[in-house]
Amino acid sequence: MKTYKIALLPGDGIGRDVTEAAKAVLEKAAARNGFLFATSSYPWSCDYYLEHGSMMPGNGIKTLSSFDAILLGAVGWPRKVPDSVSLHGLLLPIRKAFVQYANIRPHRLLPGVQGPLRSDKFDILCIRENTEGEYSGAGGRVHQGTDSEVAVETSIFTRKGVERILRFGFEQARARRGKLASVTKSNAQRYSMVFWDEITQRLSAEYPDVEVTSYHIDAMAARMVMAPDSLDVVVASNLFGDILTDLGAAIQGGLGFAASANINPDRSAPSMFEPVHGSAPDIAHLGIANPIAAIWSGAMMLEHLGETTAAAKVMAAIEATTARGIGSVPGKDRTDAITSAVLSALD
Amino acid sequence: MKTYKIALLPGDGIGRDVTEAAKAVLEKAAARNGFLFATSSYPWSCDYYLEHGSMMPGNGIKTLSSFDAILLGAVGWPRKVPDSVSLHGLLLPIRKAFVQYANIRPHRLLPGVQGPLRSDKFDILCIRENTEGEYSGAGGRVHQGTDSEVAVETSIFTRKGVERILRFGFEQARARRGKLASVTKSNAQRYSMVFWDEITQRLSAEYPDVEVTSYHIDAMAARMVMAPDSLDVVVASNLFGDILTDLGAAIQGGLGFAASANINPDRSAPSMFEPVHGSAPDIAHLGIANPIAAIWSGAMMLEHLGETTAAAKVMAAIEATTARGIGSVPGKDRTDAITSAVLSALD
Ligand SMILES: CC(C)[C@H](C(=O)O)[C@@H](O)C(=O)O
Ligand SMILES: CC(C)[C@H](C(=O)O)[C@@H](O)C(=O)O
Repeated sequence: MKTYKIALLPGDGIGRDVTEAAKAVLEKAAARNGFLFATSSYPWSCDYYLEHGSMMPGNGIKTLSSFDAILLGAVGWPRKVPDSVSLHGLLLPIRKAFVQYANIRPHRLLPGVQGPLRSDKFDILCIRENTEGEYSGAGGRVHQGTDSEVAVETSIFTRKGVERILRFGFEQARARRGKLASVTKSNAQRYSMVFWDEITQRLSAEYPDVEVTSYHIDAMAARMVMAPDSLDVVVASNLFGDILTDLGAAIQGGLGFAASANINPDRSAPSMFEPVHGSAPDIAHLGIANPIAAIWSGAMMLEHLGETTAAAKVMAAIEATTARGIGSVPGKDRTDAITSAVLSALD
Repeated sequence: MKTYKIALLPGDGIGRDVTEAAKAVLEKAAARNGFLFATSSYPWSCDYYLEHGSMMPGNGIKTLSSFDAILLGAVGWPRKVPDSVSLHGLLLPIRKAFVQYANIRPHRLLPGVQGPLRSDKFDILCIRENTEGEYSGAGGRVHQGTDSEVAVETSIFTRKGVERILRFGFEQARARRGKLASVTKSNAQRYSMVFWDEITQRLSAEYPDVEVTSYHIDAMAARMVMAPDSLDVVVASNLFGDILTDLGAAIQGGLGFAASANINPDRSAPSMFEPVHGSAPDIAHLGIANPIAAIWSGAMMLEHLGETTAAAKVMAAIEATTARGIGSVPGKDRTDAITSAVLSALD
């Protein structure tokens, strides 16, 4: 039987609860659709850091490279390890090492979910550059601790990096409603963002069937709230995509509903699937985290593996569950109850 | 009679329409409250650029320095002059030269205005660092035009710059409901944002009466939509403040309602007051721009000049106008009609 090797990285806090839920759903989907998962779970996390002095072992990336995909829960527990250490020790290096340059996040309201906006008609696909830009990790501090201290942080954009994410955006727009919004801030950031706009402009000639519009990040943030139905595919830099996808999560009812895929489109290394939410240490292990975002991320993994029927069935099971009012109201149902409902809706 | 010297910079597009409206209201407020305005208007704009090759004359900053305050409309007309040129030639240099390091933007719903959120209970004051950070203008491009091209943009944060804006934030929080939210992204930007967080942490000891919380920008964007009533004063870097204040404008019903003040708190140079909206070339001179944001910015100018009674009266006149349904629905009323209504509500 076709078997997919999946690495599980539950990580910290509620990451563990929701990964377990997603695993159960994925395994049932596999059983019903004629394939198998061989999963290996790795305890890399802030606890692991406290014990070993690093977020993952030296050969962590090598270990992960032999899998077909990675399912991640959440990383970070600021009271144990500063986020700037934990994220740069686990999540961000995986995205970079495996050239998962496209971070895809769908934003729409699940049935039964009430969002914060009066308007509930929108279906947005955000695509975030995931390997460089504002999160390049380049920078430093001089005269540290003195009155003259200066901190610099450098955003680095390469032509290759910008071109490939924009092409990915154009392709996605072509496969959807044909509209691409490219987000920059070229009126205030004259180097990086003007560069991005120029490449958008140039590539648009190759995709005459896609209607591309450039927006400034501030205007786009406002648009996502005032006119989300005017958007189809949105492509943005690492930071801007990060911000817009939390905003997307907000308009879709909260982080409990926001799924994501860190895709290596060339398939030269595994892709990684994770809910947008963080580890939420305050509610860790209380059994009240909403697993919908993690399960939805699992459906995106199925899609990526080519198991489109199983993916569609998982999505249908999620939708049937929230439509029944289970898992649709943040904080109302327990993780278990939501997972069971999705499992029983799945066939 | 007490006379204030005001420089008017109508700028481009609808900036001209709304500046005229604000001027009329301010002049009536002065007349009724026993002071005068001596205004001088300067045509610095994209048209000026096309004629003179620069957005303002070489002695522009010197000219403005003799005024008590500056009232600006909007700058930019991308089809005439790239924004990266026009903004860096007029708006941004004024903010920097006059050390207007605090950009203040109030976000609340005016009476009669329906926002996009189901919830309409919020009263947020955003404070944006206005002179450095992500908009320092430092960067460059190498291997331009080739496949190996790299663009870099460097955010520069100085201790002085960060400390003074945070102190300003703490003071504002103290004068309001005592809550300060400081916004960074220190989990992904390890130099600049960790630096900001450290200073926030250190200063908090000096303001024991202020409850300060640090948020990541992505989480804050979501919070402004999901729980805006949980926020009081929000302080953020140049870019993050820029994004959050457009989002703030969105939740308050649109850019037609969003006012701002670029403040030099030391009063060593003039402060500048401007609506958050841009020049909107597509509706320039059609007489349909909403002047409320510009008039509200004028009220902030009165406040800054110490004319608090007049400021309160202008705010009351704005509120009486929108409460009557005039200017409260984007696009419904003409600039003239809204201005007349505010003028007649003003006494
Ligand atoms: C935890 C953090 C580094 C991460 C990011 O900003 O990439 C998260 O916010 C996300 O959106 O996946
Ligand atoms: C026009 C632009 C440079 C400006 C800014 O980003 O500062 C504007 O968006 C604002 O918010 O005042």
